[in-house]
Formats: sequence, C-alpha cells, structure tokens
Amino acid sequence: MRPVAILGIGQTIIDEQWEKSLREIATEAVINALHDAGRDSAEGVFVGNMLSGIINDQANLGPLVADWAGLRGGDAVKVEAACASGAAAFRSGLMAVASGELESAMVVGVEKMTDRTQHEVTAALATAADADYEVDMGVSFVGLNALVMRRYMHEYGWKHADFAPFAINAHANAVHNPYARLRQTITLEDFEKSSMIATPINLLDASPIGDGAAAVYLVPAESLAAGRRILVAGSASATDTIGIHDRSEALFLAAANHSAQQAYRQAGIGLEEVDIFELHDAFTIMSALSLEACGFAERGKGVQLGLDGEIGITGRIPICTRGGLKARGHPVGATGVYQIAEVVQQLRGECGETQVPDARTGMVQNIGGSGATIITHILQRE
Amino acid sequence: MRPVAILGIGQTIIDEQWEKSLREIATEAVINALHDAGRDSAEGVFVGNMLSGIINDQANLGPLVADWAGLRGGDAVKVEAACASGAAAFRSGLMAVASGELESAMVVGVEKMTDRTQHEVTAALATAADADYEVDMGVSFVGLNALVMRRYMHEYGWKHADFAPFAINAHANAVHNPYARLRQTITLEDFEKSSMIATPINLLDASPIGDGAAAVYLVPAESLAAGRRILVAGSASATDTIGIHDRSEALFLAAANHSAQQAYRQAGIGLEEVDIFELHDAFTIMSALSLEACGFAERGKGVQLGLDGEIGITGRIPICTRGGLKARGHPVGATGVYQIAEVVQQLRGECGETQVPDARTGMVQNIGGSGATIITHILQRE
Repeated sequence: MRPVAILGIGQTIIDEQWEKSLREIATEAVINALHDAGRDSAEGVFVGNMLSGIINDQANLGPLVADWAGLRGGDAVKVEAACASGAAAFRSGLMAVASGELESAMVVGVEKMTDRTQHEVTAALATAADADYEVDMGVSFVGLNALVMRRYMHEYGWKHADFAPFAINAHANAVHNPYARLRQTITLEDFEKSSMIATPINLLDASPIGDGAAAVYLVPAESLAAGRRILVAGSASATDTIGIHDRSEALFLAAANHSAQQAYRQAGIGLEEVDIFELHDAFTIMSALSLEACGFAERGKGVQLGLDGEIGITGRIPICTRGGLKARGHPVGATGVYQIAEVVQQLRGECGETQVPDARTGMVQNIGGSGATIITHILQRE
Repeated sequence: MRPVAILGIGQTIIDEQWEKSLREIATEAVINALHDAGRDSAEGVFVGNMLSGIINDQANLGPLVADWAGLRGGDAVKVEAACASGAAAFRSGLMAVASGELESAMVVGVEKMTDRTQHEVTAALATAADADYEVDMGVSFVGLNALVMRRYMHEYGWKHADFAPFAINAHANAVHNPYARLRQTITLEDFEKSSMIATPINLLDASPIGDGAAAVYLVPAESLAAGRRILVAGSASATDTIGIHDRSEALFLAAANHSAQQAYRQAGIGLEEVDIFELHDAFTIMSALSLEACGFAERGKGVQLGLDGEIGITGRIPICTRGGLKARGHPVGATGVYQIAEVVQQLRGECGETQVPDARTGMVQNIGGSGATIITHILQRE
C-alpha cells in the first residue's frame, strides 16, 4: 500500500435543508472539496450514505453524485455501514488510492433525513440494529442505547448529571463551527431539565439528525511535497456482533478497541500522542464507552474525564472539537466524513476559538449500529 | 496492485425462499464458498446488496453477515450500486486484497425480495433510476427499459420476435443449472404469447426477481501455486448519467464500452479472446446493447447474433451460459456475484452440458440502473 494524503475538504451546513435535494447537498460538499483541493476531476467517487433508499426513494447514489457534480467516468459506488457509512466510504476510497488503482478519489458522506416524519426516521434508523432479534422485539435504536446507559450507571454508580459535561462541551465547541446544527451553549440545568426520550436518555444526551454532506479528496502522498501534507497514518475497521445481546460484555466496545489498537500500530504511535479524538457521541454514553475502549480511561471511568475537564480544547484529550454528533449534528451516513474533515481543519490550524494548540495527530472514530462496525482513522500533519 | 485470484465460490438456489431469512441465505452462500476455498476465516466481508433497507428493514449487512457466518473481526461493509451492487462489492474486495491491506476477502451478493408485494418491489427497484427526474414522472424501471427497446426497434427495424433467441438461449442453459430459478425451456411461440408488461417488453423479455446469494473468496494470486488459478485479469467500473434523458445516445451503453475497453487493456487481450460473456440481460434489449457496446456486434446488430445462433454454448460468443438474469434469476444485489461464480465454474470446467469447450477467458458485466454504473471483470484460468 502506498501512503495516501487528504488534499481537500468540503462541508455543508447541517440543518433542515428542505429547499435542496439530496444530490444538491452532496454536490455542494463535493464542489467545496474540489475547490479546496484545487482540482476539477476525480477518478472515483465513494458515497457514504445509510438511508437514501428508505427516505429519499433513491438508490445508486454513486452515479447520481458523480453525474451531478461533474465527476462522471470512473468508479462510483455507495458504501453503507449504518452510521459508520462515512468512514466506510472513506476507507474504500483510501484502499482504491492506496492500491494504485486510482490516482484520486472523492469521498462524500451525505444524508437528507428531515423530509420525513419523526416516526418514519426512527423506523429507518432502527434498520442499523438487528431487525429480527432486536427491532422486531419493539426496541428502537435510542432504546438500545438507553439500555446500555442504564446498565452502565447501575454497574459503575454514575448518575445522569455526570454525563452532562459531554453535551456541554460539544455545544460549547459547536458555537464556533459555521456548519454545526446547534450553535448554542447549554448548561447543566438545561441538561437535567431536557425532555426524556428513553430513560435515562434525555434530549440533551442525544445527537440531532439533519440534512448535510461532507467531502474529502484523496491523493497519493507521493504526489505532494512534504511539509504541510495531511497523511492517513492509520486506518482500521473492526466488527462485533450486530446484536448487543450476543456480546460477552455489553459495556465494552470491543470493535472500538480493536480498530484503535490497529490504527495506533499502523501510525506507530501510542495514545498519548493523540492530540484530538473525534469520537462518535451519538449519545453521551457512547462518549464514555469510546474513551474507555480506546484506552483514554479505565473501564467505568470515561465519565470522569468529562467531570475533570479533560475533554475540552485544552484538556488532556479534546473531543468533539467542532461540536461532535451532539451539536454539529448527525446526518448519519455523512457523519464519518464530517469528523475527518474537522480533524483536517484542526491539523491545518483553521479552527479559531476551538483550535487545539499545535495539533499534529488526530484520531477519528465512526460507529455503525450499537457498536457492530467501528472504524478508526489516524490523521497526521507532516 | 498485486494480482488477485478467486479461491472459492458458493451459491444458493434462487427462488421464493420464505422459510429462510436474509442472513441465512447470505450465510449459506458464504459457507459454501469457505468450503470450496478450504478456508474457515476471511479478513474482510464485502456485501453486495441493493434493497435490504427498503425491503427487509435491515441496514448494516456487513456485520450482520460477518456475525452470522462466523467471520467477525475485520472489515465488513455493504456496497451498493443498484443492480451492479454485486460487482461493486467484488471490486471493493478486490482492491482491499490488491492493495495489500487484506490477505483474504469474502464477497457475498445477497437479496431477499419476495417477502413483499409486487407493487412494493416495483417501487423499490425504481430507486435505481433518477428519483427526481424519471420516477417522479411516473415511469417504472421496466418502463424505462421499454422506452429504450421501442426506440431500438424503431431505429434499426427489428421486430419483437427477433429478441426471442436471447430468452430461449438463457432458458435452455438454465435447465442444467441447479441454482437457477426458471429451469425450463421456452419456445418462440411462448415468447410471442407471453403477457405484456410494458410495451414492447413481454414477460419473457424480462428477468425474474428472487431470493438468493452468491459468494466468492479472494486471495493474493501469489499465495497460490500457478496451474489452476482463476485470476482477476481485468476490473473496471465506468459511470454514465443516471438519467437516460441526459445521454447523448440512448441506445449506446457508453459505460459498458468504457469499462470493457479498460478491462481488455488490463488483461492484455482483444475481444476475440473472450470465450464466455456473462452479460446483464435484465431485459432482452440489454443483451443486444451490451453485445454492441463491448464490440461483439456493430450498433443495431446485436440482435443478429442471437438470430444467427452465435450466443449459444458453441457459438462465437456464448452468453448466459448458466441461464443469465433471464432464467437463472435476478436477485438484484446478488446477481453480479452469481455471474462471477458462474464464470469460475466455466473456467474450472464444471458446467457439464453447458460447458463452453476449453474456456480460458471469461468476461462478466454487471449493470446498475439503466446503464449508469457498468462494471466489467475479466477472469482467466492459468
């Protein structure tokens, strides 16, 4: 495999974009990434998307986006791994360039979710879980996460308010991200008083859906002069059982651990060298579990990092530096590409008020289902 | 890129498999391919599927299949390119192994379509077309193909019966394929008398849907002794506009031409060296257009190859040797992997009554949408 670098990134705002179609949102991100990369073509288009067949009555997003964005010609596919679709598409584009098959790849994550009712979206999101053994029993996707959170609180003795720092930190950072869906700060009181969704998950434990797209442009590292390149130093995907009930440990994200360990090895670093960790905070409980699985906290102690102020921009391990899923928003199939674009912004030093000082190494982790697919990337500036 | 070989294949029957779930059908093909390969693990699982989110309320097929088939651990994603999902998944697995990232990959195409009503399946299949500019105008997917077929008949002066040899040949070959859905011969009279679906497409112009799965197991060619290896000698994907109305020529499959030409170059062969061509005969018109785009007939003359008996097992260019989409069946996201498995059977000399004599080079072409995504592979025995 030859090393691969990220030459350009593009994002759209995450919002209810009723005036734009799926293809227009995707194209906006692609055009932004082309401009940023200073290119006008790509040999392949890899689209991360989860729900277009269900929500937008549209399959075949590869040629749809390639056609609309003026990138017709070569590879054009959709890659789906539930909420990890963005990172899965990135990894497909990465392998296409790393293999030497393509000299450039446009990876775009896109989702347009707000044209349907809340009930329809909830049903669509539940397809990420095990249809036959979880969803048919009546549990929704947030319900599954609620079961995990309740067990975690029971097992380790945390109370609901202890999870507040994850949400408060994400909102504080999103204020400075022009693409974020929820650009307002929240307080501990807001967190405690927010509406119950599925006990113990409140509204402010959960990330909002949205319409949005993010894109990154990949090239062989050798095609760029060393200096300010952003390299993909590690890339690993790991899978666990699709159903939580089949896991030996419901409170340990084994696939997060495996893919992170593999990515550390590939990058030749230890976790102490990670300057930023864009984790998959679909629910506050997932922040705690991700920090633990990747080695930043002992089991059952992830929540403490938030309480100790270690997850902020100047903390020991800054997370959700652009707002995370919680406040930037979670357009599911696009999220993994947003995370990567955001780390690129950090490594380039473009993040203003939420710039992590002297950021050199960023880790990105995207989760599909309730931990079934977990993909970890490590990006480095050199 | 390092060369890649196919070590094992597996198929299930294509039928209304109401007694089996999606995961069970996929797993059956995977287990068959593992047995055939003499392996019990794979570093990555690449699932080709189009409709599971819409029809089976199940996304995230990567970990679902990996989990169920005992292949948990590494990469596990779904790749979607409408009816070309099978070949797209194969190409993803191919690049993962070719890049050196994985030492083995299981590619499985699966679709379970018959649990829903005909109306629901028709609506689901229409997602392969342009939702905003074709489907919203009221045209179904078969309707789009009917428009193309009518134009072809008008432009080149063929009558409906002239397309019969494509269907008759496919059915004749399917009789000898234990996995085929329609194992009966048909006559010219049957063809002419069959029910109209969308003028001029009759029932016997069209391929049947079905539930089924096929799998292939990929390894680096260098890991096998030369002799009876099946090598992937060419692999190319090309895209056209998603809507037919945007093409400069509605009767020429430009993406078939581009991907085939690229595959010929990669394999270092001319089309005269192709011993078998498993083409994408979703409708008889597509057989004619595919033969023309790939150089086996001049424009407007593809039909003549059928009338001249050149598409049979001993003809100039045998097609649909195991029944094709028309009679083996078309479980959409699985079809591309069936095609590859069938060519492997031919190259191994396992096809009995429909064995193409001394087959050494086989071409496989899988089409997504009405020609938007066309992926061509060339396999060679050496």
